[in-house]
Amino acid sequence: MKENKYDNPDFFDQYSRMTRSVEGLKGAGEWHMLQKMLPEFEGKRVLDLGCGFGWHCAYVVEHGAVSVTGIDLSEKMLEEARKRNNSPRIAYKCMAVEDFEFLPDTFDIVISSLTFHYLASFDDICRNVNRCLSQGGTFVFSVEHPVFTAYGSQDWYCDQEGNRLHWPVDNYFGEGLRRSTFLGEEVVKYHKTLTTYINGLLKSGFEITELVEAQPQKELVETILDMKDELRRPMMLLISATKK
Amino acid sequence: MKENKYDNPDFFDQYSRMTRSVEGLKGAGEWHMLQKMLPEFEGKRVLDLGCGFGWHCAYVVEHGAVSVTGIDLSEKMLEEARKRNNSPRIAYKCMAVEDFEFLPDTFDIVISSLTFHYLASFDDICRNVNRCLSQGGTFVFSVEHPVFTAYGSQDWYCDQEGNRLHWPVDNYFGEGLRRSTFLGEEVVKYHKTLTTYINGLLKSGFEITELVEAQPQKELVETILDMKDELRRPMMLLISATKK
Repeated sequence: MKENKYDNPDFFDQYSRMTRSVEGLKGAGEWHMLQKMLPEFEGKRVLDLGCGFGWHCAYVVEHGAVSVTGIDLSEKMLEEARKRNNSPRIAYKCMAVEDFEFLPDTFDIVISSLTFHYLASFDDICRNVNRCLSQGGTFVFSVEHPVFTAYGSQDWYCDQEGNRLHWPVDNYFGEGLRRSTFLGEEVVKYHKTLTTYINGLLKSGFEITELVEAQPQKELVETILDMKDELRRPMMLLISATKK
Repeated sequence: MKENKYDNPDFFDQYSRMTRSVEGLKGAGEWHMLQKMLPEFEGKRVLDLGCGFGWHCAYVVEHGAVSVTGIDLSEKMLEEARKRNNSPRIAYKCMAVEDFEFLPDTFDIVISSLTFHYLASFDDICRNVNRCLSQGGTFVFSVEHPVFTAYGSQDWYCDQEGNRLHWPVDNYFGEGLRRSTFLGEEVVKYHKTLTTYINGLLKSGFEITELVEAQPQKELVETILDMKDELRRPMMLLISATKK
């Protein structure tokens, strides 16, 4: 549950070369959609769960947040974050999301990018985030889409020539551990159904304000090889909610 | 868009033999979950979009609704409804959902079972349903799940021996017409993404109150052949929402 693959040197090296690591937010295919879902940050206290290289923390500070706490399990990630995205208004803390003390009414906005599919329980996250938010506070996050995580291999089903026939879905209602290969390493993730994401939020006192299944920008679909395949199955689920 | 397959005698004959047609609500695999999502009907005015044999209309009246309007495109379905589920408090009307006049503040509850995937636009439905509901009114419906409708064939991907390997997903973001075989006939349905369902509701002024991906009851999984496969992919999406 607290697997720390990002402190593995080979994995970290590979991750550091990904477009989203080199270019930051604009190198992340879903950013153009996530950005539109973010609230006003002016004067707000923000928590970023799984902050990685700190790109979102920097963005939030640039947009007027008074303070940002960025937590991540990986010391190597945070080392980079402190180099690339430093600010007196950002506090980086090395710890698991599960170990963070979510004190009541300490943040106005909680964000998280592609982190929760590494955690076993989404209900715990919802309860904790709800508690630490102020009344009317906002929770915006992205996760790997249940369609993407269900089967487990996280790869296309191909014919013998390697042509991508379709995306396989199986064991959808069997939530829990999946092992897949990412950047040449075995990575453990936790599949959750859409029901779990939506009802987890509703049951813990959130109102859903928007749901988006990320699609690449048109220009990318037209110019980058294989990008059209991103329209064949949803890979990421983006949700915004407010504390009622 | 207003395809009326249910008035085709062969198709109707096949449909009439389905467990859900013979046994009514208790013969429908998703009923045990949909039932829990329904509001109190005592004293309420109810609209049922795509009422079929009228099983839901009868249920609603039995639970105290003062009036129910059941609309369906198929005259043959409504003939059966009038025979099997008649009540002075139920008014059956033969027309397409798109042609119904959704007058402001005329219903307290709108329900719909497995109808909207036959209609091209979900945004139109949301706007219309929202208009005809009273303040705080409830909208509960089931549709075929986007995972179920995306590929189009609505069938498992099998090996040469016919073993079900997995459920195929493709062309997920390509919303619109799909042709599949149901009860031996070609049926036209309209695939929509989850984003379209959720944001359609939110944009037209609903608050999502619950989302459920239907699963069969445990006893059925243990006793009926192939029922375990229903846990391998989601087939139906159930949503309840209230007018804000």
